[in-house]
Amino acid sequence: MVMAGNTFGKIFKITTFGESHGPAVGVVVEGVPAGMPLREEDIQRELDRRRPGQSALTTQRRERDRVEILSGVFRGRTLGTPICMLVRNLDVDSRPYEKIKTKPRPGHADLTYWLKYGYVDYRGGGRSSARETIGRVAAGAVAKKLLAAHGVEILGHTVEAAGVAIDRQPTREEIRRNVEKNPVRCALPEKAELMMKAILQAAAEGDSTGGVVEVQAHGVPAGLGEPVFGKLDAEIAAAMMSIGSVKAVGIGEGEKMARLRGSEANDAFRIKDGKIVAETNRAGGILGGISTGMPIVVRLTVKPTPSISKPQRTVDWAKMEEAEIRLKGRFDPNICPRIVPVAEAMMALVLADQMIRAGKINPDRFG
Amino acid sequence: MVMAGNTFGKIFKITTFGESHGPAVGVVVEGVPAGMPLREEDIQRELDRRRPGQSALTTQRRERDRVEILSGVFRGRTLGTPICMLVRNLDVDSRPYEKIKTKPRPGHADLTYWLKYGYVDYRGGGRSSARETIGRVAAGAVAKKLLAAHGVEILGHTVEAAGVAIDRQPTREEIRRNVEKNPVRCALPEKAELMMKAILQAAAEGDSTGGVVEVQAHGVPAGLGEPVFGKLDAEIAAAMMSIGSVKAVGIGEGEKMARLRGSEANDAFRIKDGKIVAETNRAGGILGGISTGMPIVVRLTVKPTPSISKPQRTVDWAKMEEAEIRLKGRFDPNICPRIVPVAEAMMALVLADQMIRAGKINPDRFG
Amino acid sequence: MVMAGNTFGKIFKITTFGESHGPAVGVVVEGVPAGMPLREEDIQRELDRRRPGQSALTTQRRERDRVEILSGVFRGRTLGTPICMLVRNLDVDSRPYEKIKTKPRPGHADLTYWLKYGYVDYRGGGRSSARETIGRVAAGAVAKKLLAAHGVEILGHTVEAAGVAIDRQPTREEIRRNVEKNPVRCALPEKAELMMKAILQAAAEGDSTGGVVEVQAHGVPAGLGEPVFGKLDAEIAAAMMSIGSVKAVGIGEGEKMARLRGSEANDAFRIKDGKIVAETNRAGGILGGISTGMPIVVRLTVKPTPSISKPQRTVDWAKMEEAEIRLKGRFDPNICPRIVPVAEAMMALVLADQMIRAGKINPDRFG
Amino acid sequence: MVMAGNTFGKIFKITTFGESHGPAVGVVVEGVPAGMPLREEDIQRELDRRRPGQSALTTQRRERDRVEILSGVFRGRTLGTPICMLVRNLDVDSRPYEKIKTKPRPGHADLTYWLKYGYVDYRGGGRSSARETIGRVAAGAVAKKLLAAHGVEILGHTVEAAGVAIDRQPTREEIRRNVEKNPVRCALPEKAELMMKAILQAAAEGDSTGGVVEVQAHGVPAGLGEPVFGKLDAEIAAAMMSIGSVKAVGIGEGEKMARLRGSEANDAFRIKDGKIVAETNRAGGILGGISTGMPIVVRLTVKPTPSISKPQRTVDWAKMEEAEIRLKGRFDPNICPRIVPVAEAMMALVLADQMIRAGKINPDRFG
Repeated sequence: MVMAGNTFGKIFKITTFGESHGPAVGVVVEGVPAGMPLREEDIQRELDRRRPGQSALTTQRRERDRVEILSGVFRGRTLGTPICMLVRNLDVDSRPYEKIKTKPRPGHADLTYWLKYGYVDYRGGGRSSARETIGRVAAGAVAKKLLAAHGVEILGHTVEAAGVAIDRQPTREEIRRNVEKNPVRCALPEKAELMMKAILQAAAEGDSTGGVVEVQAHGVPAGLGEPVFGKLDAEIAAAMMSIGSVKAVGIGEGEKMARLRGSEANDAFRIKDGKIVAETNRAGGILGGISTGMPIVVRLTVKPTPSISKPQRTVDWAKMEEAEIRLKGRFDPNICPRIVPVAEAMMALVLADQMIRAGKINPDRFG
Repeated sequence: MVMAGNTFGKIFKITTFGESHGPAVGVVVEGVPAGMPLREEDIQRELDRRRPGQSALTTQRRERDRVEILSGVFRGRTLGTPICMLVRNLDVDSRPYEKIKTKPRPGHADLTYWLKYGYVDYRGGGRSSARETIGRVAAGAVAKKLLAAHGVEILGHTVEAAGVAIDRQPTREEIRRNVEKNPVRCALPEKAELMMKAILQAAAEGDSTGGVVEVQAHGVPAGLGEPVFGKLDAEIAAAMMSIGSVKAVGIGEGEKMARLRGSEANDAFRIKDGKIVAETNRAGGILGGISTGMPIVVRLTVKPTPSISKPQRTVDWAKMEEAEIRLKGRFDPNICPRIVPVAEAMMALVLADQMIRAGKINPDRFG
Repeated sequence: MVMAGNTFGKIFKITTFGESHGPAVGVVVEGVPAGMPLREEDIQRELDRRRPGQSALTTQRRERDRVEILSGVFRGRTLGTPICMLVRNLDVDSRPYEKIKTKPRPGHADLTYWLKYGYVDYRGGGRSSARETIGRVAAGAVAKKLLAAHGVEILGHTVEAAGVAIDRQPTREEIRRNVEKNPVRCALPEKAELMMKAILQAAAEGDSTGGVVEVQAHGVPAGLGEPVFGKLDAEIAAAMMSIGSVKAVGIGEGEKMARLRGSEANDAFRIKDGKIVAETNRAGGILGGISTGMPIVVRLTVKPTPSISKPQRTVDWAKMEEAEIRLKGRFDPNICPRIVPVAEAMMALVLADQMIRAGKINPDRFG
Repeated sequence: MVMAGNTFGKIFKITTFGESHGPAVGVVVEGVPAGMPLREEDIQRELDRRRPGQSALTTQRRERDRVEILSGVFRGRTLGTPICMLVRNLDVDSRPYEKIKTKPRPGHADLTYWLKYGYVDYRGGGRSSARETIGRVAAGAVAKKLLAAHGVEILGHTVEAAGVAIDRQPTREEIRRNVEKNPVRCALPEKAELMMKAILQAAAEGDSTGGVVEVQAHGVPAGLGEPVFGKLDAEIAAAMMSIGSVKAVGIGEGEKMARLRGSEANDAFRIKDGKIVAETNRAGGILGGISTGMPIVVRLTVKPTPSISKPQRTVDWAKMEEAEIRLKGRFDPNICPRIVPVAEAMMALVLADQMIRAGKINPDRFG
């Protein structure tokens, strides 16, 4: 995988661009085989999932986010050439940012962008805004479509939010059925209810909360991954950690592995329907950096939204003095539900690239 | 960063090669500026830290692991050309592997290599063996030397093993002083004692244990990292997850972030000695994928060593039938102490590359 | 350098997109340091140079080609984030292509795109159209601006067209002064006149002609280039050969070197104003793949425009039978003058990337 | 393709290392599918072709150049893991270089390496020595073997040397039969004779000569190449220009294209045996950067060997004064015959990589 600046992937490769309050955000997707059906609706559906303003749990900003395909598609089918997708930034109100433009918001990237570049677009986080993920989700929609045609399904769901965790692993069917039915994107409805309450409680106190998102990939063939540095789990870890607010990534049992014994952690092999399978899947579908054929399972720790209405201590870099900041506006009190489609997108991007690299998907022609 | 197959890094870049029981293992390191003093002793010192056979906690195999520098160094100084370093594989006894060559060891990469490649070197894990990390550690020694000359120090230590965790964060000085004094590489001597006991207890039962390793980088300048995909934490996550046995990676507070509120998780900014600093470092030295100038802190979850002497269920892929496997030999009952130098090496590789890419280290000439 | 699909460069890196008759063409430019002044006029000026319809020598199609900057620039200065630049495709008449959509034009990429992708946008050459160079030229304008601020000037001119070659090397001043004054972009006005006549003569016969374009770079510091594969001349060769219609690339004396003796080909070194210089510059400013500090000189052989009005033999791939094709419309009878700005752009892209990689330009901050 | 420093290729990828008078030179080859038969003899045969001392036309230095495979091969078959191949540098006499260590040889890379790196291995050209091509040729032998199993044959021959050019294109059979039978590697025996005479004549005068080498690839499937920057011809140009002494590269008719008319340059298409073919192959097997299925034909201009025994003017960089240099020893009076196997190797590397990237060769498993 190439992972550099604004580009991600090696053959199936994306480059995102755009600042939150600039003219537009978007993405160029390369490496999509020619002849695959693709329409703006395919993209729009996924973009609508990441859009804010869907419930009390996500911000109420009105982002219309209509995608336009500018290249790479001809009469509803891909050309094998780069697909540029664009979303104009509309209805942006940059005034609140004028007042705090030299006061970096704690937990945000304001300070580090300024330290690195010396000249920043302070409006709405600029390039570090969550709006950048529009490009990822749009590209992910293309990757998902390609993967679906090759038998791979990607499912994300919130497994913990505001201290409320699921108490049993939902089935694949439950995830499919329930995730879009509640604003936290939890597959267990009773837990979703509790998560919502806890999130809103913290929000009422002017605070925010974090959680854990899980992404699964089903139908992934064995043999993906390029040891020893391009291991599948290494690529997934990079992909997920590149999402803002993600502070930890675990594969399979993840951090729980620290407290297991070898006899508990190893997945025994057996034969089922003439195929070698793992009896359990604590490894999360990956051994030695190569997919086993079992579902890929990844968990991401999402930090609490850094924007909170409580006053916070910061500095004024223009005056080089300490200062206080009070953020106004409507923030996501918990970002987990909006991380779900982004994390799914990143998983799809990794797998589409890996499938092509491993010769499982033809790089030039679809179907 | 490029992260593909056997290559890691973009400018400061390494390519490792070698199978466990083949003629040799080694590495080619590119992107080292010319004129840097470098001798085989610099490399050997780090290699000796990763070598097994140092205590009851690590395997008793006698790996002499003498490094030879084959290129890129002339009269004790680097040339700016690729540095190839080689370690011959000596004293290898491949016989135990002949018996199990069609029976993949659970928790190991035997099965996935076979599924991917169809033809494998089954002796000692072949390419998936921990011996591959010799190349990483040798290259890391070069990176560490380059970083030290630019004020960056990297420190690794075991913070949890076999269920015993440290109860306070050791100081930088304690880590420096204590880590090489006990076989678990724990910076708190009293905890080291308890870890050892717990590890040996499990080993006596024919089982293995896991743990958590922390790596810190001090003196890292602000501004490293290339948003939005080449984020510093994304590159570190990939680097660490590419180490065998690592199943989770967290930055700063890592997975604990899931249960904090925004007001607890955000690091307030203040001014100290005329510089903007973070009052706390829950972010682990990275915001928005860019280094803040605070220490980088990363934690890796290490799974229990998959090789255990207890019998395990597996398959025989030649006969396509289920089978039992009993591994004989001397295995590391806990791999954490040997992960420490490897994780330090990976951190050094990421940072050396990033320092050059960000213009903090001259790519062509040293000093 | 990365040179893959639609991406070119390693740190200063571009990704172009767009088909000739699709909604738009454009480019994403990464790696531009923050704080550099940049306005749409800077880009438009270069785009206007590559636009057709400027004289009898170039096609009369009306391409307005107004560029829009969509990201990476804030209040007239760059942000260090990706710069997406877009040009809408207007006034395109796709009807002439409907008739020949299964008959590949000889000398064009119609056949090979179809063989590779199986599904093509046959209108105006699709992705293989010269319109793709709009993205290159727009990105090149950014690179030129960055280079100019670091003392590097890039000059292109036509040195041979339709069999008429210059008979002496013009001075740097002549190139600057004369190239934009005649439609062939020749620096010697008397030769420009002869070239035009020869081009129009062939055009009157329904045929086209080729020629040779030279690009020079002045003020390039010594030390650029990354032996042994990322040699400066290797990168330049790739850059130039990636331009449609270019069939040969030579550095310095280029193909004339075959007939010189060593004593004639070697440039003697001497000392001038306290600096080591080459007395002559037959090497074209590069030795061992590294810049010497002398001007970089490259020559490109441009094939005759493949679109001619004479009838040509081809096939019909739908019917799998032989066929004749007669192209109608207004074609460039000689493409050299329009290659000049594209070749300049490619040179600028290579050098901007190399200057950053060699630490001669700060990757994050301008000036 | 990645083309950076010492690495070439994207999936089938090589990294060379080593200085002329250091301990060893070698290469790491990645991306070779598992299960391919490979023995040291396969490599040695090609290395012997590039070795000097084969005739009066090449230097008389005794380079034994025995290759050792250190990894990636197990019991005569490849593992899909990196193949490190090593050749020790023996019989090197560095004394002649001590005297001229601050006096750069005109036409060589001595000066530019010193300008770039500030610290150099001046013995025998160090890294810029032709010995570096040992790694290329060894890797090329692996690529050739892989290609041969997929129907691709690569043939190189000298088409011009010391001013003597072939007067007709030899057949494929003539090249196969004659090239190894004469020291200039010319496929036309009568021309070989004349070339030898002309070369030796110049050598007798203390001078050297250049020439032109052609490389052909037969059996290449249509559809290779990744527009618009990873065009097949762009990759080939980079590959060839990265060979020391190569100053120009042309595809098909190459620089002759400048003087043809469109009606002469375009290859008409026709149908033969139910397949679309080009009637002629002036394009050299590539249209729009994509292979047509016709043979790939490339010509390289090789400059005269820069080492000549005539006195030359240079500088002494330690004293910063002008100086004279007289090179002693046995130099190749014409390097063309030794470029032939290197150019074949580079062609093989490009095509092996492209075949895998285009899905024509399975990346993981051979056969």
